[in-house]
Amino acid sequence: MASTPTPSGINRRGLLTTAATLPLLFAPALPFLQPARAQTDPLPSWNDGPSKQAITGFVARVTQQGGPDFVAPAERIATFDNDGTLWVEHPMYTQLAFILDRVKVLAPLHPEWASTQPFKAVLEGDIKTLVAAGERGLMELGMATHAGMSTAEFEKIVTDWISTARHPRFKRLYTELSYLPMIELLAYLRANRFKTFIVSGGGVEFMRPWTERVYGVPPEQVVGSSIKTKFQIHDGKPELFRLPEINFVDDGPGKPVGINEYIGRRPIAAFGNSDGDLEMLQWTTMNGGARLGMIVHHTDAEREYAYDRDTDFGRLDKALDAAALNKWVVIDMKNDWKRIFAFEGK
Amino acid sequence: MASTPTPSGINRRGLLTTAATLPLLFAPALPFLQPARAQTDPLPSWNDGPSKQAITGFVARVTQQGGPDFVAPAERIATFDNDGTLWVEHPMYTQLAFILDRVKVLAPLHPEWASTQPFKAVLEGDIKTLVAAGERGLMELGMATHAGMSTAEFEKIVTDWISTARHPRFKRLYTELSYLPMIELLAYLRANRFKTFIVSGGGVEFMRPWTERVYGVPPEQVVGSSIKTKFQIHDGKPELFRLPEINFVDDGPGKPVGINEYIGRRPIAAFGNSDGDLEMLQWTTMNGGARLGMIVHHTDAEREYAYDRDTDFGRLDKALDAAALNKWVVIDMKNDWKRIFAFEGK
Repeated sequence: MASTPTPSGINRRGLLTTAATLPLLFAPALPFLQPARAQTDPLPSWNDGPSKQAITGFVARVTQQGGPDFVAPAERIATFDNDGTLWVEHPMYTQLAFILDRVKVLAPLHPEWASTQPFKAVLEGDIKTLVAAGERGLMELGMATHAGMSTAEFEKIVTDWISTARHPRFKRLYTELSYLPMIELLAYLRANRFKTFIVSGGGVEFMRPWTERVYGVPPEQVVGSSIKTKFQIHDGKPELFRLPEINFVDDGPGKPVGINEYIGRRPIAAFGNSDGDLEMLQWTTMNGGARLGMIVHHTDAEREYAYDRDTDFGRLDKALDAAALNKWVVIDMKNDWKRIFAFEGK
Repeated sequence: MASTPTPSGINRRGLLTTAATLPLLFAPALPFLQPARAQTDPLPSWNDGPSKQAITGFVARVTQQGGPDFVAPAERIATFDNDGTLWVEHPMYTQLAFILDRVKVLAPLHPEWASTQPFKAVLEGDIKTLVAAGERGLMELGMATHAGMSTAEFEKIVTDWISTARHPRFKRLYTELSYLPMIELLAYLRANRFKTFIVSGGGVEFMRPWTERVYGVPPEQVVGSSIKTKFQIHDGKPELFRLPEINFVDDGPGKPVGINEYIGRRPIAAFGNSDGDLEMLQWTTMNGGARLGMIVHHTDAEREYAYDRDTDFGRLDKALDAAALNKWVVIDMKNDWKRIFAFEGK
């Protein structure tokens, strides 16, 4: 299935970033969504079934003026995890693929890496050693590739990479590996006056350069992990310089903290796929009133991947147990999604 | 002029907060703005002059489709300082008045405060000792009054206080001491498809409970200083507990850092009134293209206050010197503003 090896023993703390200060110019529309909007069915890539019904039923309830579950538009906050919820996260988080590529690109400037771990392992494709380096090793790789430049420079690096790097199995751009049903869902919620946010363990500046184009989510509605930055005047121009120091880890219990800190409102709907989303789902749904919690369950090894409790990327264990208890809706990718990717034939 | 004493030697680091997780329900409209919008002049409280012309000229340029300075709506980000820019900050920051009031309210629960500085000084109105306690003392007061409860509890405390506490000189609610010309400016920019943000050294959770009602700025567009919070399940319900630990200081060089971290786009217009806004103004305007930087200069001792280089709250010194160099527009409150507060007669 996946030819790229899968490091284990690695968690999100090592996969931080920050980037994109300079704005996206003239965010392009999402042309492939137009037909969907024009149709009667706003969720054409979803098969009829309990998942689709849960979505449309929830939206009907909270938007029914005068109804018992009505929620004012300003309060219609929906938060989405990114990796594994909006796009593919196997055989490894996309940001980790970016890190490994960057180490290779930067290696000529760092001859010492040829004999220094964990860089040596990356350069030699020695995954066993890389995995043994664990979180600390990954953090070193992350800082070496994500810090030491301005936010504008990092944005350009991300933009260039994301427009050329290809997924090892699908041979597509990573942005093409976003899930069409979820993009329809984002648009459907916005059409019903929801404000959609990304709340991801990934680096916020790794996401902001492309989330508006791909998901219709502007930079100011992306919450993620970050490293610290420092303001300085460089050659007469102000810049923000990226420092090799963790600022915020937006994962697990960090997600409700980040939601409160960066958004300042409590969501009424939340979407995730792994244990890293457990607390976000709790925070969103255990608050009385009509609430929607959904979990994308990766059940389709043929069209995408199948994994849950036993995987290094996107482990879904505690949150799957909690779903039944909390009436979160578990999306069965294989049966609930008619199409997974926009590039698939209809 | 002001009967309340003014502590000195105190900076913003001590005046932190965080609050308001629970949403503002049904944000009320800003009814007093409707007449202004309906009139031909969108800025009726501004006298004709260079400041008003700078605003309308800038907006005309960046909104002129096909013009050389056109900026797409998504990029029309405007950031506003709060204390001294949108509302009164003398004789002391409003949040400091809140802290002093809270110490008095909480004192019966803390008999030890009667003999412990800096609490003793607050309780005895001994401003000299309070000032001598400096930043560290203020930090202690801030933590004692802002941490140790859930975000929901803190939001209620702020909401109750802001709806009853009155300014020592004007005998008005603090929210009534917001500047009408600036509220018109916020609305005018939004009418021209700007997205308006507050970027304040004040505590973000001290502001979020009321900014939508007073300024039309929703919680998710408020950036401020914060303390850390911790997610926990308490009596079967998730909560965010406020910890006595600084998370982020949104002042001075922290403002561009905060803008990048919380908004992720670079503003094209910024409004401040003190040296704490210097770097925000640099970051906004020193970037090519049509940009607007404005400084509210407190020049009206009769209707409000007159101060700049020599004051403990809102010192305007370096930023005033930088204004000429950078072509920032200095608003002369006395001459540029026809009315300062909504409660004044027309």
